[in-house]
Amino acid sequence: MSYLKEKILKDGVVLDGNVLKVDSFLNHQIDPVVLKEISNEFIEYFKDKEITKVMTIEASGIAPAILVASHLNIPMLFAKKTEPSTLSNEDQFSTNVHSYTKNKTSRVLVSKQYLTPDDKVLIIDDFLANGEAALGLIDLVEQAKAEVVGVGICVEKSFQPGRAKIEDKGVDIFSICRIASLENNKITFVEDEH
Amino acid sequence: MSYLKEKILKDGVVLDGNVLKVDSFLNHQIDPVVLKEISNEFIEYFKDKEITKVMTIEASGIAPAILVASHLNIPMLFAKKTEPSTLSNEDQFSTNVHSYTKNKTSRVLVSKQYLTPDDKVLIIDDFLANGEAALGLIDLVEQAKAEVVGVGICVEKSFQPGRAKIEDKGVDIFSICRIASLENNKITFVEDEH
Repeated sequence: MSYLKEKILKDGVVLDGNVLKVDSFLNHQIDPVVLKEISNEFIEYFKDKEITKVMTIEASGIAPAILVASHLNIPMLFAKKTEPSTLSNEDQFSTNVHSYTKNKTSRVLVSKQYLTPDDKVLIIDDFLANGEAALGLIDLVEQAKAEVVGVGICVEKSFQPGRAKIEDKGVDIFSICRIASLENNKITFVEDEH
Repeated sequence: MSYLKEKILKDGVVLDGNVLKVDSFLNHQIDPVVLKEISNEFIEYFKDKEITKVMTIEASGIAPAILVASHLNIPMLFAKKTEPSTLSNEDQFSTNVHSYTKNKTSRVLVSKQYLTPDDKVLIIDDFLANGEAALGLIDLVEQAKAEVVGVGICVEKSFQPGRAKIEDKGVDIFSICRIASLENNKITFVEDEH
């Protein structure tokens, strides 16, 4: 069993509404051992892709994404949820991302300068549920006419439709940890992993 | 000359209003070589402190903070600008941080669970100008009765009052790159570094 799974079983907390709280080690406080294992798993799975850039969305995706990018010695790019004063409208690719948790649609953006048609982009995020963030990132890469070589997810809620939406786009998706159910406050994983 | 300084001179862009745009390598797209050098400088400068936790604020501080924490094999904690659904009010330390750039005051918060009186905290951020973010983080650490062992900054605007405010609190501050002036679109560094 992967260390991330062990950690989820040990320290993850299931809250009402199918919410898995992992803020002691993944998306608020970050455990360096968990993060290193996550990064190693992504690097191993995507090792045959000629990745030129790792991409994520602020804020919780940044830690795993930068570790992977550092290891591969390539740049990391994170999509922003607020408009920087240093970036004018015509210099951005932007898309709308709906958060079901927050019941809010936000515009996310990247500078056109940092995504080019030559880029082969690995998208990394901490969670996948409805797939909105990952689809938004894929949309940004497609606007730049760059290529998405894959999507790497730390924790996938496999009982929600995110994975299917990404597979429908023909994109390779790899999740370190796939959760089949959080019902009755019990965490069960998908047997047939990845 | 440090690689970060070289990179700032080569790829930094000075915009009106004393704004230094470094989003090609530091706070939107992140250059892995720059980031590694930054992380090494922080680790070297603070090597005699018994750091138990690295802390920053989302989003641009996360990349340098997680690299330092990973290297030291200790947890990283980032203060959040939006309230997570998984964290109730009584479980938070919170403080207000004013952004002069955005002319907006935001509440930032951390879970009480992840800052304890035993913690010796190294605060890391990408920029220091008026010092509001760093002072907010110091306030959160003090609320937890933990100790701030230092503040590490990638780029300090030394013509703004942030450093003085932090020094007034008796906190050790180390900035990799200190900018004396951005006037007339010219970048000049503080001669007597750190």
